[in-house]
Formats: sequence, C-alpha cells, structure tokens
Amino acid sequence: MSSKEKLEALIKDQGELVRKLKGAKESKQKIDNEVAKLLELKSQLSCENGEVQKFTLKTAKGTRDFSPQQMAIRETVFEKIISVFKRHGAETIDTPIFELKEVLTGKYGEDSKLIYDLKDQGGEILSLRYDLTVPFARYLAMNKITNIKRYHIAKVYRRDNPSITRGRYREFYQCDFDIAGAYDPMIPDAECVRVVQEILESLDIGSFVIKLNHRALLDGMFEACGVPPEKFRSICSAVDKLDKSPWADVRKEMIEEKGLTDEVADKIGQYVQMSGKHELVEKLLADANLTKVRAAVEGLEAMKLVLNYCDLLGVKDKAVFDLSLARGLDYYTGIIYEAVLLGEPVAEDMAGSVGSIAGGGRYDNLVGMFDAKHKQVPCVGVSIGIERIFAVIEAKLLAGTSKVRTTAVEVYVASAQKNLLEERMKVCKELWNEGIKAEQSYKKNPKLLAQLQHCEEYGIPLAIILGESEIQKGVVKLRNVVTRNEVEVPRGKLVDEIKKHLQPVYSNGST
Amino acid sequence: MSSKEKLEALIKDQGELVRKLKGAKESKQKIDNEVAKLLELKSQLSCENGEVQKFTLKTAKGTRDFSPQQMAIRETVFEKIISVFKRHGAETIDTPIFELKEVLTGKYGEDSKLIYDLKDQGGEILSLRYDLTVPFARYLAMNKITNIKRYHIAKVYRRDNPSITRGRYREFYQCDFDIAGAYDPMIPDAECVRVVQEILESLDIGSFVIKLNHRALLDGMFEACGVPPEKFRSICSAVDKLDKSPWADVRKEMIEEKGLTDEVADKIGQYVQMSGKHELVEKLLADANLTKVRAAVEGLEAMKLVLNYCDLLGVKDKAVFDLSLARGLDYYTGIIYEAVLLGEPVAEDMAGSVGSIAGGGRYDNLVGMFDAKHKQVPCVGVSIGIERIFAVIEAKLLAGTSKVRTTAVEVYVASAQKNLLEERMKVCKELWNEGIKAEQSYKKNPKLLAQLQHCEEYGIPLAIILGESEIQKGVVKLRNVVTRNEVEVPRGKLVDEIKKHLQPVYSNGST
Repeated sequence: MSSKEKLEALIKDQGELVRKLKGAKESKQKIDNEVAKLLELKSQLSCENGEVQKFTLKTAKGTRDFSPQQMAIRETVFEKIISVFKRHGAETIDTPIFELKEVLTGKYGEDSKLIYDLKDQGGEILSLRYDLTVPFARYLAMNKITNIKRYHIAKVYRRDNPSITRGRYREFYQCDFDIAGAYDPMIPDAECVRVVQEILESLDIGSFVIKLNHRALLDGMFEACGVPPEKFRSICSAVDKLDKSPWADVRKEMIEEKGLTDEVADKIGQYVQMSGKHELVEKLLADANLTKVRAAVEGLEAMKLVLNYCDLLGVKDKAVFDLSLARGLDYYTGIIYEAVLLGEPVAEDMAGSVGSIAGGGRYDNLVGMFDAKHKQVPCVGVSIGIERIFAVIEAKLLAGTSKVRTTAVEVYVASAQKNLLEERMKVCKELWNEGIKAEQSYKKNPKLLAQLQHCEEYGIPLAIILGESEIQKGVVKLRNVVTRNEVEVPRGKLVDEIKKHLQPVYSNGST
Repeated sequence: MSSKEKLEALIKDQGELVRKLKGAKESKQKIDNEVAKLLELKSQLSCENGEVQKFTLKTAKGTRDFSPQQMAIRETVFEKIISVFKRHGAETIDTPIFELKEVLTGKYGEDSKLIYDLKDQGGEILSLRYDLTVPFARYLAMNKITNIKRYHIAKVYRRDNPSITRGRYREFYQCDFDIAGAYDPMIPDAECVRVVQEILESLDIGSFVIKLNHRALLDGMFEACGVPPEKFRSICSAVDKLDKSPWADVRKEMIEEKGLTDEVADKIGQYVQMSGKHELVEKLLADANLTKVRAAVEGLEAMKLVLNYCDLLGVKDKAVFDLSLARGLDYYTGIIYEAVLLGEPVAEDMAGSVGSIAGGGRYDNLVGMFDAKHKQVPCVGVSIGIERIFAVIEAKLLAGTSKVRTTAVEVYVASAQKNLLEERMKVCKELWNEGIKAEQSYKKNPKLLAQLQHCEEYGIPLAIILGESEIQKGVVKLRNVVTRNEVEVPRGKLVDEIKKHLQPVYSNGST
C-alpha cells in the first residue's frame, strides 16, 4: 500500500467518523475537531498528489528572510548598540509578540488601522505589538514598577504599505532604550540624547545631528500664533511633515485642509523654520508674543536645561534645537528628539530615503493609562531605527570589497586520501573537547580541493590535512589557509600548536 | 479647553464627516477608513474618562513577560548554546514570525489545529510559525539552497492548553541546529547527537541520556509484528506515549482504540521495551522475524553506523539505542533522537515534568514539498527544549543564594553633598568616553545612602564619591562596594585607576 493509498484510506475512515458524529448529533466542538482532522488529511493528500506548489513560494508581504551574511551584519550592529545600552547601565526585558487588543487600543491615533489582529479562534482577542513602548508601559503598570532603565530589541508589526527600497517593512526590529521613574527635570532626557550620539558614532555611518524640541513649546507656539486648541494635534501632524516636504506645501495643507488663516499659518512658518542652540532659546525667551503663553515659557526653560546638560555630557556639537521637529505619536508630553543622517546617500536607490534614524521623547502619561488608579510613571526613551541603519551598512558593504564571515570556524579538518573519515572524526572530537571551533566534510571521501575551497569560501584560517603517511609518522599537516604555508605537527601536540597559531588570528580581530 | 473637550469636539466633527460621506454614497473603503478613525477617537475618549481599566491587565493566555533577572539567565544560557553551535561551524538565519498559511498546511498532522491564524484584514492569509523547521525548509526551497549548516533561535507559537508548571507555553523559544545537504549516511546525524551532548554538558543541569531510534526500523518492526500498513502512523503515535505512560496503558490503547489483536500488541511490546547499545543492534540483526523485513534491516544497519560514529565523536556513554522512542512529528524519515534528563527534579512542582529536553531527527522529504519539481534536500537537525532548560535553571537559582546581576555597570558616580550634579555629569562623560560602564542617580540631590544602596542592590563593584572638599583638593574618592574600602585618587588619574581596579573584577569573572 503506497502512502497515497494509506492516506486515501485514512480520509475514508475519517469521513465516516464525521458522518457518524453528525448523525448522532454530537457536540459542535467534537464534530469541528474531527472535520479539522479530515481537512488536514485531505491537504496532505494534495501534497502527495504533487499539488504542493499551487501557491507562490514567498514570505508574507512586507517581510523577508535574513541570510547568514545579513545576520552576521545584524549581529555586529546589535552588539555595538547593546554595548552602549549596557555602558549606561540598562537592564533588558522581553514581552510577548502579541498583546490583548485592548492594550493597544487608543494609543496610536490614526495609525491604529495598521495594527495586525489575530484571528478570533475562541478565547482572547489579540493583536501583534505595534511598537515596544506600549508593551513596556503595560509591563510597568502590571508589575507596579516605578523605576527602571531598560533596553528592548525585538520585532514589531505594522500593516503599512511598505516601501522596501526605503528600508520600511511590515515586520521590523526596534531597539528601544527607556528610563522610567520620577526624577529631576531633563537629567534622564539628556542621557537619552547622549546614548543616541554614542550609538551613531560607534556605528560609523556618517555625520548626523540630533534635533530637539519640546511638546509644550509647540503647543505654546501654536497658541501664540492663534491656532484654536482643538487643532493643535492636526497642525502638529502637519509640522511633522516638514522633514519631507517644503514649508510651502505644509502651509498649503494648514490653510486648505486644516482651515487655518493665511496669517496664522505664516506666523507658524516664521517659528518652524528656526533652529539653533542656546542663543535661539534666549532669542525666543525674549519674544513677547511667545512668552505670554505659559506653556511656551515652560518648554523654553526645559530646552535651556536640556541643552546645558547635553553640553556637560559631551553632545554639544550634535544637539540642535529645531522648532520644525514635531514627531507623529500622540503620547509624547515633553522633550522630543530625532537623529538625522546628513551627507550623501550610500546607494543610489536610497537617495533621500534615509533621514531620520533614531527618535524618541518623554511620555509621562502612558503608564497611567494602564493603572486602575491612574498612577503615573514618568518615562523618557529613544528608539533606534535599526532597519535603516542595516540598509545603510549593507549598501556600504555591497559597495566595498570586504567579505563578511558567517561562521566562526577556526580549523577545518581535511583529509588528503580516502578512508580517513574515522581519523577526521577523532581529530574533530579532540578539537571540540578543547573548545576549538572546528568542522569537517560530511562526505566519506571528499576531494582535497573541495575541502580547501570550502576553507577559502568561509574564511577559515587553519586547515588540518590528514594523510596515510603522516598518520604512520605520528604527525599531521597544519595549513595556513591564507598563506598556504604548511607545517608538520606531532599528533600529540596538535591542540597546543593550533592554539599557538590562532593567537595572531585572534589579535588581528578576524574571528 | 481640556483635552477631553478637545476630543469630544473631534468626535463630533468626525461623526459629521462620516454622515456626509454616507450621504454622498462615497466608496465603502473611504467610509470604513473614516469610521475607523471615529472609533479610535471614541476609544481615546473612554481613556480620558478613566474607563481605561475595564480589562484585566495581563499578558495573553499562555504567554509571559521576562523580567531583567530572567533575561540575564536567558542571555547566559543562549550564549552557551550559541557557542556550541558556532564551535560546530553553524551560520544563523532568520525568518518572519508569520508565514503564508499554505506554507504550514499539511505539515503537522493533527497538531495543525494549534496553529495561530492572523485575522483576514485584506490581502494574504497568514499564520504564526509553529516551529522553525518548516520555515527553514521553505527558506531552502525558495532560495534553492542545497547545503547549509544553520542554527536559529527564535519564538514559535502553538494554541495549546499550556501547562505552565510543566514549562509549556503558547509562545516559546526554539533553539534549532540543522544540517542540510546530500551527504554520506549518518555523518551529520552523529554530529547532531554530539551537539546535544555538548550543550547539555555545558549547561550543567544534571545527568542525561540521548535515546536513538530509526523510523525505518519502527516501520519494519511494525510490519514484522503484523500491524497493517495503514495503521503504522497511529501505532507509532501510541508508542510515542511510552515516555509518559506504562506499557500496559499503551497496549490497551493499541487493542481497544487502534484495533490491534492481543497477539500483535504483545509482539510490539517485546520490542519497544528493549534498549541498549551495539549488542542490541547485533541481537536484533540476528532476529529472523525482524530481518525478513527489508526496512528493519536498513534501520538496524543505520543504527550500527550511527552508534559507531557516536563512539568516535565521544558520545559513547550518553547515546542509547531505545526502541520505545517514536517522536510525534510526521516528517521524520530516518534517525530520530531525544535527550532525557535523569535524576531528581530540582523543584517539587516540576516532579516528573522535565523529561525530554532536546529532540530531532532526519527529515529528507520536507524541502521537496516546497519545490515545484519536488527536488529534495536531505536534512537532519535537533531542537533544544530551551523553556524546560530555563525552568530547571531558574528553579536551581531560586533554591540557591547566588544573585544574578541584571546590569553590567562597573562604576557608580555618586555625590556626598548637594549641588554636584554637573560634576557627576562631567565624570560620567569621561568614563563613557573611555568605554567604562557607568551610571549615576537621575536626581539632582540624591542621598548618599540611597546611592550606595543602589550599588549593593545591583552588584556594582566600584563607586566614585564626589565631595566639595575633594573637588577643591583635585581628588575623588574611589570606593570598593564589597569591601567598603576607599582610596583618594587624583582627578586626572581617575580613569587609569578605575581600569586598574576593574582588572581583578574582570578576572574573577563577575561582570
């Protein structure tokens, strides 16, 4: 009986069982269970019948696999970022990839339509996380944590229409660093700016600035310009477009779509085109139109303080006070910031695509939304736009000639003749026992050339070459793959000799 | 206007917009979009009205957050496992958390009902991955990769009814190592067994054995005992229960539920209670009843070979040929194995719970199911039951007294008096510039005691204590947090001095 015939027999039996249950008016759940099994069997039969390839073999829209090369780059980048987070004393946590849908509801404004929902399969209504900030706030409220400095690197999900060339996906990593706790003004906020600077400098992806602004100042400025309070949010969204669109377009949107008068829009226009440092704060603190609004003064005082702290923490050159910075998300309540890459795009198809590369701000009310008594835990944090960073680094590597190693193998155990598999296995065992990273061919009698080519392809520094005559002499050949230099080493001293040879390899940093 | 009033105004406007669109018989999509915005605004209003906490604050059923302590343990465990994978020359890849539903269909037999589906929000029909093996096979077929040795550590999803005390969840990590490629028999298979041994030994979680069996031998044995071919699968599932149930129960199931005769069941019973090493293979190769079936002989010859290779690779003591091992999944085609922890459970509520701790086998036909021309890529691999390992290690740590560090901070920058925030910031900047892991209080004038308590709580080895008189003298106090020993260090030599003090800390391995 072929496996196809077996399946057909199973389907027949299962079909009878379902009919019997239906006839006996058994519970819906019981019947559903058996129907599910029947459908599963039928789909297995389709496979057996060679019907497997009816669908296009692809990953879901907006998602992608990562090859060993890409993963090697990611690992290096993550290590650098994590080392900065750890240098600043952060712990890490993890949360599930999905949350009760209610946890996400009412946090993202219009973007809520981009949330992925899970199918209602009975039980709870769930959604994939949209960012790491809301789950973090839920975690704090649920565990009644009032202060923590944590980082979290994990995937988030948005049903956006992804622009792949611009490095935007439906599944992508976020790299978040947040400081929660009731502290004195702007001290943790300034450290977040320093963290962004350290990360971007350690990644060496070109020059950048970190734009700073304050939500209270934005609101105060809108009020001073005569924007009606109910339009603050939508005008803020319009300002947020200034990183991609010229002022003329944004002005048009404010007047034609958002219903501001020409006069009000022009007043806003004067402010949002300003950027500078301490002197700009002083200039605005002397602006009577602005300082009549309390929120504006509060925002300016906060800017003064944070710029001062940034100087002390060594981010003087990179931090710029920029009134055009608005940030899309609703939950920010204080300082906001955004790091922007300057200079030439690394690859042609990325022209104008990689701008904003990290962003964040203060959100003092989010945790309270999850607490029964609305107990607030003030938070400030930053999210690193890691996918854009990968895009930049990949483009850089593609443009260059250096090859990325995808394995860490130190020694390849090769044989020059047939029938030496058992000998190779013994050598591998010895090396693994000593913690040496080693591999061999999984073929019984591989060709020597193929073995050496493997070493070169994977950048393995050393090869042991076993041969009958050497075995009889009690020695093995040790080959430097790059120089092709070979030495004979007594079998008993092999491990010591390898460790000696690996020393310069280690110190060259090529492992 | 309060933010609540603003929201009410926005809701009013949005409601009018929706009515207008409906009146103008605009497209459904346009109306739906605006309705979605309206609902979003209404839910925001509920939040403003303090209605936020209507739902229980929890993670989704069967999922959990990981605290910094748990993450610190996970990191250590992952590092150990990854170092074994790398020692064996594995690369790593990543795949999306969800796949087209069709990719998963027909791969998991009855367990398909445990797959999480995403809601149909227009577009593709998606499901969360159920394991890492099927996405791996899809990746190979899609990219036409014919050989690779890769590891993949990532979360998978099963709508099971989780038994939390037994370390089973709906979201959990898998740690997979697989070797794909057409090689000579049992060579990669034996290396997988060695990898399991190295991992379990490096984790130091107690003694274990690795049971081995072969699907061809199982099938041959069933045939020799007189099981009808269409019942091979279901009898195999019954055998699979032998790790939890006594033979008497399994026998009963075979006879009463699966319809075997007493005689056939008893014949099976004789075989599945056998376990041993080389001598058992020889004994069975001399069993005329068994050797009349070709599949049984093939399976036995394969077992002979793999046990021989295991000996050569140094897994002699741990590898046991066990005829009761069946493994649930349908896709195995050759050798199967499972590592089982022996000895006392570490915690009382885990009694009998942690048994199987790693498992895998050969699956030569899975990749072909994704290829239009059914081109096969033979694979063998192992999956480490990492959640159970965490459960064991956490229980061990809870039972002991040692504390897990959750940060890597080396130096805490404290002040003994008020108004030294700026000085602390300058010192932090210097330390960070030198790559030293340092933190300070985010309060302007923290109490010295609170600062020192923080050091002890987080296991920070060194503290700098700033004071007015020291600053005037051009020195700072450097304190060893454990010994409470303090030395005065010239301000200009601070970094050098810290590095000197950290040397023994590093070599004690306590960072």
